[in-house]
Amino acid sequence: MTTKQLPLPELVKGLVDLGVPGVGLWREPVAEFGLAESAALVADAGLTVTSLCRGGFFTAVEPAERAAALADNRAAVDEAAALGTDTLVLVSGGLPAGSRDLPGARERIADALAELGPYAAERGVRLAIEPLHPMYAADRCVVSTLAQALDLAERFPAEQVGVVVDTYHLWWDDRVAEQIERAGQGGRIHCFQLADWVTPLPAGVLTGRGQIGDGAVDMRWFRDAVAAAGYRGPVEVEIFNDGLWARDGRQVLTETVDRYREHVLAPVA
Amino acid sequence: MTTKQLPLPELVKGLVDLGVPGVGLWREPVAEFGLAESAALVADAGLTVTSLCRGGFFTAVEPAERAAALADNRAAVDEAAALGTDTLVLVSGGLPAGSRDLPGARERIADALAELGPYAAERGVRLAIEPLHPMYAADRCVVSTLAQALDLAERFPAEQVGVVVDTYHLWWDDRVAEQIERAGQGGRIHCFQLADWVTPLPAGVLTGRGQIGDGAVDMRWFRDAVAAAGYRGPVEVEIFNDGLWARDGRQVLTETVDRYREHVLAPVA
Repeated sequence: MTTKQLPLPELVKGLVDLGVPGVGLWREPVAEFGLAESAALVADAGLTVTSLCRGGFFTAVEPAERAAALADNRAAVDEAAALGTDTLVLVSGGLPAGSRDLPGARERIADALAELGPYAAERGVRLAIEPLHPMYAADRCVVSTLAQALDLAERFPAEQVGVVVDTYHLWWDDRVAEQIERAGQGGRIHCFQLADWVTPLPAGVLTGRGQIGDGAVDMRWFRDAVAAAGYRGPVEVEIFNDGLWARDGRQVLTETVDRYREHVLAPVA
Repeated sequence: MTTKQLPLPELVKGLVDLGVPGVGLWREPVAEFGLAESAALVADAGLTVTSLCRGGFFTAVEPAERAAALADNRAAVDEAAALGTDTLVLVSGGLPAGSRDLPGARERIADALAELGPYAAERGVRLAIEPLHPMYAADRCVVSTLAQALDLAERFPAEQVGVVVDTYHLWWDDRVAEQIERAGQGGRIHCFQLADWVTPLPAGVLTGRGQIGDGAVDMRWFRDAVAAAGYRGPVEVEIFNDGLWARDGRQVLTETVDRYREHVLAPVA
Protein backbone atom coordinates (compact mmCIF):
# COMPACT_ATOMS: atom_id res chain seq x y z
CA MET A 1 0.00 0.00 0.00
CA THR A 2 2.95 2.33 0.57
CA THR A 3 3.47 2.39 -3.19
CA LYS A 4 0.01 1.51 -4.44
CA GLN A 5 0.72 3.41 -7.66
CA LEU A 6 3.08 0.58 -8.69
CA PRO A 7 1.56 -2.36 -10.57
CA LEU A 8 2.38 -5.65 -8.84
CA PRO A 9 5.15 -6.73 -11.28
CA GLU A 10 6.93 -3.38 -10.88
CA LEU A 11 6.59 -3.54 -7.12
CA VAL A 12 8.07 -7.03 -7.06
CA LYS A 13 10.94 -6.05 -9.35
CA GLY A 14 11.60 -2.94 -7.29
CA LEU A 15 11.78 -4.91 -4.05
CA VAL A 16 14.09 -7.50 -5.56
CA ASP A 17 16.37 -4.79 -6.92
CA LEU A 18 16.55 -3.19 -3.48
CA GLY A 19 17.24 -6.47 -1.70
CA VAL A 20 13.96 -6.49 0.23
CA PRO A 21 13.12 -10.13 0.99
CA GLY A 22 9.35 -9.96 1.42
CA VAL A 23 6.16 -8.08 0.69
CA GLY A 24 2.86 -7.54 2.48
CA LEU A 25 0.01 -7.62 -0.01
CA TRP A 26 -3.52 -6.25 -0.11
CA ARG A 27 -6.39 -8.23 -1.55
CA GLU A 28 -7.52 -5.70 -4.16
CA PRO A 29 -4.31 -5.50 -6.26
CA VAL A 30 -3.93 -9.28 -5.93
CA ALA A 31 -7.45 -9.81 -7.27
CA GLU A 32 -6.77 -7.38 -10.09
CA PHE A 33 -3.58 -9.16 -11.17
CA GLY A 34 -5.07 -12.58 -10.50
CA LEU A 35 -4.57 -14.73 -7.40
CA ALA A 36 -2.61 -17.56 -9.03
CA GLU A 37 -0.65 -15.07 -11.14
CA SER A 38 0.24 -13.00 -8.07
CA ALA A 39 1.34 -16.07 -6.14
CA ALA A 40 3.55 -17.19 -9.03
CA LEU A 41 4.97 -13.73 -9.62
CA VAL A 42 6.06 -13.30 -6.02
CA ALA A 43 7.33 -16.87 -5.61
CA ASP A 44 9.32 -16.74 -8.86
CA ALA A 45 10.97 -13.55 -7.62
CA GLY A 46 12.01 -15.32 -4.42
CA LEU A 47 9.95 -13.01 -2.20
CA THR A 48 8.07 -14.06 0.90
CA VAL A 49 4.50 -12.83 1.28
CA THR A 50 4.67 -11.49 4.83
CA SER A 51 0.92 -10.92 5.28
CA LEU A 52 -2.33 -10.41 3.43
CA CYS A 53 -4.46 -7.38 4.25
CA ARG A 54 -7.30 -7.52 5.08
CA GLY A 55 -10.16 -9.47 6.53
CA GLY A 56 -12.49 -8.29 9.25
CA PHE A 57 -15.51 -5.95 9.34
CA PHE A 58 -17.25 -8.29 11.74
CA THR A 59 -19.57 -5.87 13.49
CA ALA A 60 -22.74 -6.02 11.38
CA VAL A 61 -25.93 -6.97 13.22
CA GLU A 62 -28.08 -8.26 10.35
CA PRO A 63 -27.75 -12.04 9.87
CA ALA A 64 -27.39 -11.74 6.08
CA GLU A 65 -24.67 -9.12 6.44
CA ARG A 66 -22.90 -11.22 9.05
CA ALA A 67 -23.01 -14.30 6.83
CA ALA A 68 -21.64 -12.29 3.90
CA ALA A 69 -18.80 -10.95 6.06
CA LEU A 70 -17.87 -14.44 7.23
CA ALA A 71 -17.96 -15.78 3.67
CA ASP A 72 -15.72 -12.95 2.53
CA ASN A 73 -13.32 -13.67 5.38
CA ARG A 74 -13.15 -17.34 4.45
CA ALA A 75 -12.26 -16.23 0.93
CA ALA A 76 -9.55 -13.98 2.37
CA VAL A 77 -8.12 -16.93 4.31
CA ASP A 78 -8.10 -19.02 1.12
CA GLU A 79 -6.31 -16.22 -0.72
CA ALA A 80 -3.71 -15.94 2.05
CA ALA A 81 -3.08 -19.68 1.85
CA ALA A 82 -2.81 -19.52 -1.94
CA LEU A 83 -0.25 -16.72 -1.65
CA GLY A 84 1.75 -18.77 0.84
CA THR A 85 1.49 -16.32 3.72
CA ASP A 86 0.65 -17.44 7.24
CA THR A 87 -0.94 -14.14 8.33
CA LEU A 88 -4.26 -12.49 7.53
CA VAL A 89 -4.58 -8.97 8.98
CA LEU A 90 -8.01 -8.10 10.36
CA VAL A 91 -9.61 -4.67 10.56
CA SER A 92 -12.41 -5.61 12.86
CA GLY A 93 -15.10 -3.09 11.95
CA GLY A 94 -16.71 -0.01 13.46
CA LEU A 95 -20.15 0.71 14.87
CA PRO A 96 -23.08 -0.21 12.62
CA ALA A 97 -24.94 2.88 11.35
CA GLY A 98 -26.88 4.51 14.17
CA SER A 99 -25.47 2.22 16.87
CA ARG A 100 -23.71 3.40 20.02
CA ASP A 101 -23.17 -0.08 21.43
CA LEU A 102 -19.41 -0.57 21.61
CA PRO A 103 -19.50 -3.66 23.87
CA GLY A 104 -22.00 -5.34 21.52
CA ALA A 105 -19.84 -4.65 18.48
CA ARG A 106 -16.82 -6.07 20.29
CA GLU A 107 -18.67 -9.25 21.20
CA ARG A 108 -19.70 -9.78 17.59
CA ILE A 109 -16.01 -9.67 16.66
CA ALA A 110 -15.32 -12.44 19.17
CA ASP A 111 -18.20 -14.47 17.72
CA ALA A 112 -16.74 -14.15 14.22
CA LEU A 113 -13.25 -15.10 15.41
CA ALA A 114 -14.65 -18.25 16.99
CA GLU A 115 -15.98 -19.31 13.60
CA LEU A 116 -13.06 -18.12 11.52
CA GLY A 117 -10.11 -19.14 13.70
CA PRO A 118 -10.35 -22.92 13.18
CA TYR A 119 -11.06 -22.46 9.47
CA ALA A 120 -7.90 -20.35 9.12
CA ALA A 121 -5.71 -22.62 11.24
CA GLU A 122 -6.68 -25.64 9.14
CA ARG A 123 -5.24 -23.76 6.16
CA GLY A 124 -2.06 -22.68 7.94
CA VAL A 125 -3.22 -19.10 8.33
CA ARG A 126 -3.19 -17.08 11.56
CA LEU A 127 -5.60 -14.23 12.09
CA ALA A 128 -4.00 -10.98 13.27
CA ILE A 129 -6.30 -8.47 14.99
CA GLU A 130 -5.06 -4.99 14.22
CA PRO A 131 -5.91 -2.44 16.89
CA LEU A 132 -6.57 0.76 14.95
CA HIS A 133 -5.99 4.25 16.31
CA PRO A 134 -8.95 5.38 18.45
CA MET A 135 -9.85 7.99 15.84
CA TYR A 136 -11.17 5.08 13.73
CA ALA A 137 -13.32 3.56 16.48
CA ALA A 138 -16.66 4.70 15.07
CA ASP A 139 -16.26 3.86 11.42
CA ARG A 140 -13.51 1.25 11.05
CA CYS A 141 -12.45 -0.61 14.14
CA VAL A 142 -13.83 -0.75 17.67
CA VAL A 143 -10.59 -2.42 18.78
CA SER A 144 -8.42 0.56 19.67
CA THR A 145 -5.55 -0.60 21.88
CA LEU A 146 -3.12 -3.49 21.97
CA ALA A 147 -4.49 -4.49 25.39
CA GLN A 148 -7.97 -4.73 23.95
CA ALA A 149 -6.78 -6.71 20.91
CA LEU A 150 -4.99 -9.13 23.24
CA ASP A 151 -8.06 -9.48 25.46
CA LEU A 152 -9.88 -10.64 22.33
CA ALA A 153 -7.08 -12.77 20.88
CA GLU A 154 -6.40 -14.58 24.15
CA ARG A 155 -9.84 -16.17 24.07
CA PHE A 156 -8.42 -18.33 21.25
CA PRO A 157 -5.26 -20.37 20.68
CA ALA A 158 -2.26 -18.29 19.53
CA GLU A 159 -1.96 -20.34 16.35
CA GLN A 160 -5.44 -19.14 15.45
CA VAL A 161 -5.55 -15.53 16.60
CA GLY A 162 -2.86 -12.96 17.35
CA VAL A 163 -2.34 -9.24 16.91
CA VAL A 164 -0.69 -6.64 14.71
CA VAL A 165 1.70 -4.16 16.31
CA ASP A 166 1.49 -1.06 14.11
CA THR A 167 3.42 1.98 15.27
CA TYR A 168 0.95 4.42 13.70
CA HIS A 169 -1.95 3.10 15.73
CA LEU A 170 -0.18 2.46 19.04
CA TRP A 171 2.60 5.00 19.52
CA TRP A 172 0.59 7.31 21.82
CA ASP A 173 -0.40 4.60 24.34
CA ASP A 174 1.37 4.70 27.70
CA ARG A 175 0.61 0.98 28.14
CA VAL A 176 2.15 -0.13 24.85
CA ALA A 177 5.44 -1.35 26.37
CA GLU A 178 3.76 -3.72 28.81
CA GLN A 179 1.30 -4.89 26.16
CA ILE A 180 4.01 -5.66 23.59
CA GLU A 181 5.69 -7.75 26.27
CA ARG A 182 2.40 -9.52 26.96
CA ALA A 183 1.84 -10.14 23.25
CA GLY A 184 5.34 -11.54 22.83
CA GLN A 185 5.05 -13.83 25.84
CA GLY A 186 1.91 -15.32 24.37
CA GLY A 187 3.46 -15.75 20.94
CA ARG A 188 0.82 -13.45 19.53
CA ILE A 189 2.75 -10.81 17.60
CA HIS A 190 1.75 -12.04 14.15
CA CYS A 191 2.62 -8.87 12.29
CA PHE A 192 4.74 -5.74 12.89
CA GLN A 193 4.09 -2.64 10.81
CA LEU A 194 5.67 0.81 10.65
CA ALA A 195 4.32 4.22 9.73
CA ASP A 196 5.06 7.57 11.29
CA TRP A 197 2.64 10.02 12.91
CA VAL A 198 2.61 13.45 11.28
CA THR A 199 0.31 16.43 11.74
CA PRO A 200 -1.87 18.14 10.69
CA LEU A 201 -4.12 15.21 9.82
CA PRO A 202 -5.96 15.43 6.49
CA ALA A 203 -9.77 15.43 6.22
CA GLY A 204 -11.06 11.91 6.81
CA VAL A 205 -7.78 11.04 8.58
CA LEU A 206 -7.10 8.03 6.35
CA THR A 207 -4.27 9.10 4.10
CA GLY A 208 -2.02 11.16 6.33
CA ARG A 209 0.45 8.61 7.63
CA GLY A 210 4.02 9.80 7.64
CA GLN A 211 7.12 8.40 5.94
CA ILE A 212 9.45 6.71 8.44
CA GLY A 213 11.43 9.38 10.27
CA ASP A 214 9.13 12.30 9.43
CA GLY A 215 7.06 12.22 12.60
CA ALA A 216 6.58 11.61 16.29
CA VAL A 217 7.19 7.85 16.46
CA ASP A 218 10.37 6.51 18.03
CA MET A 219 10.94 3.67 15.53
CA ARG A 220 13.96 2.21 17.28
CA TRP A 221 12.03 1.99 20.50
CA PHE A 222 9.38 -0.14 18.79
CA ARG A 223 12.03 -2.24 17.01
CA ASP A 224 13.70 -2.97 20.33
CA ALA A 225 10.42 -3.56 22.16
CA VAL A 226 9.15 -6.23 19.76
CA ALA A 227 12.62 -7.82 19.61
CA ALA A 228 12.80 -7.95 23.42
CA ALA A 229 9.36 -9.57 23.36
CA GLY A 230 10.78 -12.34 21.20
CA TYR A 231 9.52 -11.22 17.80
CA ARG A 232 11.75 -12.39 14.96
CA GLY A 233 9.36 -11.96 12.05
CA PRO A 234 9.28 -9.50 9.17
CA VAL A 235 8.94 -5.74 9.53
CA GLU A 236 6.42 -4.20 7.16
CA VAL A 237 6.20 -0.55 6.20
CA GLU A 238 2.60 0.44 5.56
CA ILE A 239 2.05 4.12 4.79
CA PHE A 240 -1.17 5.60 3.44
CA ASN A 241 -0.15 9.00 2.17
CA ASP A 242 -1.55 11.01 -0.72
CA GLY A 243 1.79 12.74 -1.16
CA LEU A 244 3.73 9.49 -1.49
CA TRP A 245 1.12 8.06 -3.85
CA ALA A 246 1.43 11.07 -6.15
CA ARG A 247 5.18 10.52 -6.58
CA ASP A 248 7.15 8.09 -8.73
CA GLY A 249 6.60 4.71 -7.10
CA ARG A 250 10.15 3.40 -7.56
CA GLN A 251 11.53 6.56 -6.01
CA VAL A 252 9.21 6.13 -3.00
CA LEU A 253 10.30 2.50 -2.66
CA THR A 254 13.97 3.51 -2.63
CA GLU A 255 13.33 6.32 -0.16
CA THR A 256 11.39 3.97 2.13
CA VAL A 257 14.25 1.47 2.21
CA ASP A 258 16.69 4.31 2.95
CA ARG A 259 14.48 5.57 5.76
CA TYR A 260 14.16 2.08 7.16
CA ARG A 261 17.94 1.73 7.21
CA GLU A 262 18.39 5.14 8.84
CA HIS A 263 15.58 5.16 11.41
CA VAL A 264 15.02 1.49 12.19
CA LEU A 265 18.13 -0.57 11.44
CA ALA A 266 20.95 1.84 12.23
CA PRO A 267 22.02 2.31 15.85
CA VAL A 268 21.62 5.80 17.32
CA ALA A 269 24.50 7.97 16.02
CA MET B 1 -16.96 27.64 23.03
CA THR B 2 -20.05 25.87 21.68
CA THR B 3 -21.41 29.28 20.68
CA LYS B 4 -18.24 31.29 20.37
CA GLN B 5 -19.97 33.56 17.84
CA LEU B 6 -22.01 35.04 20.72
CA PRO B 7 -20.51 38.01 22.58
CA LEU B 8 -20.36 37.33 26.31
CA PRO B 9 -23.39 39.49 27.23
CA GLU B 10 -25.54 37.75 24.64
CA LEU B 11 -24.35 34.34 25.78
CA VAL B 12 -25.20 35.18 29.38
CA LYS B 13 -28.62 36.52 28.44
CA GLY B 14 -29.29 33.46 26.29
CA LEU B 15 -28.41 31.09 29.10
CA VAL B 16 -30.56 32.95 31.60
CA ASP B 17 -33.50 32.95 29.17
CA LEU B 18 -33.14 29.20 28.72
CA GLY B 19 -32.85 28.50 32.44
CA VAL B 20 -29.28 27.24 32.27
CA PRO B 21 -27.72 27.85 35.69
CA GLY B 22 -24.02 28.03 34.80
CA VAL B 23 -21.44 28.61 32.12
CA GLY B 24 -17.95 27.32 31.39
CA LEU B 25 -15.76 30.14 30.12
CA TRP B 26 -12.62 30.38 28.03
CA ARG B 27 -9.87 32.83 28.82
CA GLU B 28 -9.79 34.63 25.46
CA PRO B 29 -13.37 35.99 25.40
CA VAL B 30 -13.06 36.83 29.11
CA ALA B 31 -9.89 38.83 28.43
CA GLU B 32 -11.59 40.57 25.53
CA PHE B 33 -14.60 41.62 27.61
CA GLY B 34 -12.44 42.34 30.64
CA LEU B 35 -11.89 40.06 33.63
CA ALA B 36 -13.69 42.17 36.24
CA GLU B 37 -16.44 43.03 33.77
CA SER B 38 -16.94 39.35 32.90
CA ALA B 39 -17.07 38.35 36.56
CA ALA B 40 -19.63 41.06 37.28
CA LEU B 41 -21.72 40.25 34.19
CA VAL B 42 -22.00 36.57 35.07
CA ALA B 43 -22.54 37.14 38.79
CA ASP B 44 -25.21 39.80 38.20
CA ALA B 45 -27.05 37.34 35.95
CA GLY B 46 -27.01 34.76 38.75
CA LEU B 47 -24.93 32.28 36.76
CA THR B 48 -22.24 30.03 38.20
CA VAL B 49 -18.93 29.88 36.36
CA THR B 50 -18.51 26.11 36.14
CA SER B 51 -14.91 26.12 34.91
CA LEU B 52 -12.28 28.21 33.17
CA CYS B 53 -10.53 26.82 30.11
CA ARG B 54 -7.60 26.59 29.84
CA GLY B 55 -4.21 26.31 31.42
CA GLY B 56 -1.56 23.78 30.55
CA PHE B 57 0.99 23.43 27.73
CA PHE B 58 3.57 22.23 30.20
CA THR B 59 5.81 20.18 27.94
CA ALA B 60 8.40 22.72 26.77
CA VAL B 61 12.03 21.85 27.44
CA GLU B 62 13.66 25.30 27.36
CA PRO B 63 13.85 26.92 30.84
CA ALA B 64 12.59 30.28 29.56
CA GLU B 65 9.64 28.66 27.82
CA ARG B 66 8.86 26.62 30.92
CA ALA B 67 8.97 29.68 33.13
CA ALA B 68 6.68 31.55 30.74
CA ALA B 69 4.21 28.64 30.73
CA LEU B 70 4.15 28.54 34.53
CA ALA B 71 3.64 32.30 34.73
CA ASP B 72 0.77 32.07 32.27
CA ASN B 73 -0.77 29.26 34.29
CA ARG B 74 -0.55 31.29 37.50
CA ALA B 75 -2.37 34.06 35.65
CA ALA B 76 -5.02 31.54 34.58
CA VAL B 77 -5.47 30.45 38.21
CA ASP B 78 -5.87 34.09 39.25
CA GLU B 79 -8.46 34.60 36.52
CA ALA B 80 -10.37 31.51 37.63
CA ALA B 81 -10.41 32.81 41.19
CA ALA B 82 -11.56 36.24 40.03
CA LEU B 83 -14.41 34.64 38.09
CA GLY B 84 -15.44 32.67 41.15
CA THR B 85 -14.93 29.23 39.63
CA ASP B 86 -13.14 26.45 41.48
CA THR B 87 -11.91 24.62 38.36
CA LEU B 88 -9.17 25.39 35.84
CA VAL B 89 -9.10 22.95 32.91
CA LEU B 90 -5.63 21.94 31.71
CA VAL B 91 -4.62 20.90 28.22
CA SER B 92 -1.24 19.51 29.12
CA GLY B 93 0.72 20.00 25.90
CA GLY B 94 2.11 17.84 23.09
CA LEU B 95 5.62 16.87 22.06
CA PRO B 96 8.07 19.73 21.61
CA ALA B 97 9.06 20.21 17.95
CA GLY B 98 11.31 17.37 16.81
CA SER B 99 10.92 15.38 20.03
CA ARG B 100 9.77 11.76 20.22
CA ASP B 101 10.13 11.50 23.99
CA LEU B 102 6.63 10.87 25.35
CA PRO B 103 7.75 9.78 28.85
CA GLY B 104 9.88 12.91 29.17
CA ALA B 105 7.01 15.18 28.16
CA ARG B 106 4.75 13.46 30.67
CA GLU B 107 7.25 13.96 33.48
CA ARG B 108 7.50 17.68 32.71
CA ILE B 109 3.74 17.89 33.17
CA ALA B 110 4.09 16.34 36.62
CA ASP B 111 6.86 18.84 37.45
CA ALA B 112 4.61 21.73 36.48
CA LEU B 113 1.67 20.36 38.49
CA ALA B 114 3.89 20.14 41.56
CA GLU B 115 4.57 23.88 41.29
CA LEU B 116 1.10 24.95 40.25
CA GLY B 117 -1.06 22.74 42.48
CA PRO B 118 -0.34 24.50 45.80
CA TYR B 119 -0.57 27.94 44.15
CA ALA B 120 -4.02 27.06 42.81
CA ALA B 121 -5.28 25.45 46.02
CA GLU B 122 -4.33 28.54 48.02
CA ARG B 123 -6.68 30.47 45.75
CA GLY B 124 -9.51 27.93 45.96
CA VAL B 125 -8.92 26.60 42.46
CA ARG B 126 -8.54 22.95 41.51
CA LEU B 127 -6.56 21.92 38.45
CA ALA B 128 -8.36 19.50 36.12
CA ILE B 129 -6.17 17.46 33.78
CA GLU B 130 -8.10 16.85 30.58
CA PRO B 131 -7.10 13.68 28.78
CA LEU B 132 -7.42 14.54 25.10
CA HIS B 133 -8.23 12.05 22.37
CA PRO B 134 -5.09 10.18 21.25
CA MET B 135 -5.25 11.91 17.87
CA TYR B 136 -3.98 15.03 19.68
CA ALA B 137 -1.05 13.31 21.40
CA ALA B 138 1.66 14.80 19.18
CA ASP B 139 0.60 18.41 19.01
CA ARG B 140 -1.72 19.16 21.95
CA CYS B 141 -1.73 16.72 24.81
CA VAL B 142 0.40 13.69 25.64
CA VAL B 143 -2.19 12.67 28.25
CA SER B 144 -4.56 10.51 26.21
CA THR B 145 -6.61 8.37 28.57
CA LEU B 146 -8.45 8.81 31.83
CA ALA B 147 -6.20 6.19 33.42
CA GLN B 148 -3.14 8.18 32.46
CA ALA B 149 -4.67 11.45 33.71
CA LEU B 150 -5.45 9.78 37.02
CA ASP B 151 -1.94 8.33 37.29
CA LEU B 152 -0.72 11.92 37.08
CA ALA B 153 -3.39 13.49 39.27
CA GLU B 154 -3.01 10.94 42.05
CA ARG B 155 0.53 12.09 42.73
CA PHE B 156 -1.11 15.17 44.25
CA PRO B 157 -3.95 15.86 46.71
CA ALA B 158 -7.42 15.76 45.12
CA GLU B 159 -8.10 19.33 46.20
CA GLN B 160 -5.14 20.37 44.03
CA VAL B 161 -5.38 18.13 40.97
CA GLY B 162 -8.21 16.15 39.40
CA VAL B 163 -9.41 15.27 35.92
CA VAL B 164 -11.91 16.20 33.24
CA VAL B 165 -14.25 13.52 31.93
CA ASP B 166 -15.05 14.61 28.37
CA THR B 167 -17.14 12.21 26.29
CA TYR B 168 -15.53 13.29 23.02
CA HIS B 169 -12.07 12.29 24.17
CA LEU B 170 -12.91 9.14 26.11
CA TRP B 171 -15.90 7.41 24.51
CA TRP B 172 -13.82 4.82 22.57
CA ASP B 173 -11.85 3.55 25.58
CA ASP B 174 -12.81 0.10 26.86
CA ARG B 175 -11.38 1.02 30.29
CA VAL B 176 -13.41 4.18 30.72
CA ALA B 177 -16.02 2.63 33.02
CA GLU B 178 -13.47 1.39 35.55
CA GLN B 179 -11.52 4.65 35.32
CA ILE B 180 -14.58 6.85 35.92
CA GLU B 181 -15.24 4.75 39.01
CA ARG B 182 -11.63 5.23 40.12
CA ALA B 183 -11.85 8.98 39.50
CA GLY B 184 -15.07 9.23 41.49
CA GLN B 185 -13.73 7.23 44.41
CA GLY B 186 -10.80 9.60 44.66
CA GLY B 187 -13.00 12.69 44.43
CA ARG B 188 -11.16 13.69 41.30
CA ILE B 189 -13.89 14.31 38.73
CA HIS B 190 -13.49 18.09 38.68
CA CYS B 191 -15.28 18.64 35.38
CA PHE B 192 -17.68 16.73 33.10
CA GLN B 193 -18.04 17.77 29.48
CA LEU B 194 -20.15 16.55 26.58
CA ALA B 195 -19.62 16.50 22.82
CA ASP B 196 -20.52 13.83 20.32
CA TRP B 197 -18.22 11.93 17.96
CA VAL B 198 -19.12 12.34 14.30
CA THR B 199 -17.30 11.32 11.13
CA PRO B 200 -15.72 12.11 8.76
CA LEU B 201 -13.30 14.23 10.72
CA PRO B 202 -12.31 17.56 9.16
CA ALA B 203 -8.73 18.43 8.21
CA GLY B 204 -6.76 19.24 11.37
CA VAL B 205 -9.39 17.33 13.44
CA LEU B 206 -10.03 20.28 15.75
CA THR B 207 -13.44 21.57 14.75
CA GLY B 208 -15.43 18.46 13.96
CA ARG B 209 -17.09 17.67 17.29
CA GLY B 210 -20.71 16.69 16.98
CA GLN B 211 -23.82 18.23 18.48
CA ILE B 212 -25.21 16.06 21.30
CA GLY B 213 -27.14 13.16 19.77
CA ASP B 214 -25.60 13.37 16.31
CA GLY B 215 -22.90 10.78 16.80
CA ALA B 216 -21.50 7.63 18.32
CA VAL B 217 -21.43 8.59 22.01
CA ASP B 218 -23.91 7.04 24.42
CA MET B 219 -24.57 10.19 26.47
CA ARG B 220 -26.85 8.54 29.01
CA TRP B 221 -24.21 5.93 29.71
CA PHE B 222 -21.71 8.66 30.61
CA ARG B 223 -24.31 10.56 32.64
CA ASP B 224 -25.05 7.43 34.65
CA ALA B 225 -21.39 6.46 34.98
CA VAL B 226 -20.28 9.76 36.51
CA ALA B 227 -23.40 9.84 38.73
CA ALA B 228 -22.68 6.31 39.97
CA ALA B 229 -19.12 7.46 40.69
CA GLY B 230 -20.53 10.14 42.97
CA TYR B 231 -20.27 13.15 40.68
CA ARG B 232 -22.88 15.79 41.46
CA GLY B 233 -21.29 18.77 39.69
CA PRO B 234 -22.28 20.67 36.57
CA VAL B 235 -22.48 19.16 33.09
CA GLU B 236 -20.85 21.29 30.42
CA VAL B 237 -21.45 21.05 26.69
CA GLU B 238 -18.29 21.91 24.78
CA ILE B 239 -18.53 21.51 21.03
CA PHE B 240 -15.97 22.82 18.53
CA ASN B 241 -17.80 22.74 15.23
CA ASP B 242 -17.45 25.00 12.23
CA GLY B 243 -21.03 24.30 11.23
CA LEU B 244 -22.44 25.35 14.61
CA TRP B 245 -20.23 28.44 14.69
CA ALA B 246 -21.56 29.54 11.29
CA ARG B 247 -25.16 29.53 12.51
CA ASP B 248 -27.14 31.98 14.61
CA GLY B 249 -25.69 31.64 18.10
CA ARG B 250 -29.00 31.93 19.98
CA GLN B 251 -30.48 29.22 17.79
CA VAL B 252 -27.51 26.95 18.53
CA LEU B 253 -27.89 27.63 22.24
CA THR B 254 -31.56 26.66 22.14
CA GLU B 255 -30.84 23.56 20.08
CA THR B 256 -28.08 22.51 22.48
CA VAL B 257 -30.40 22.77 25.48
CA ASP B 258 -33.04 20.77 23.59
CA ARG B 259 -30.48 18.09 22.72
CA TYR B 260 -29.30 17.98 26.30
CA ARG B 261 -32.84 17.43 27.50
CA GLU B 262 -33.47 14.73 24.88
CA HIS B 263 -30.20 12.79 24.97
CA VAL B 264 -28.89 13.35 28.48
CA LEU B 265 -31.69 14.20 30.88
CA ALA B 266 -34.60 12.22 29.50
CA PRO B 267 -34.89 8.53 30.33
CA VAL B 268 -34.73 6.10 27.40
CA ALA B 269 -38.10 6.16 25.64
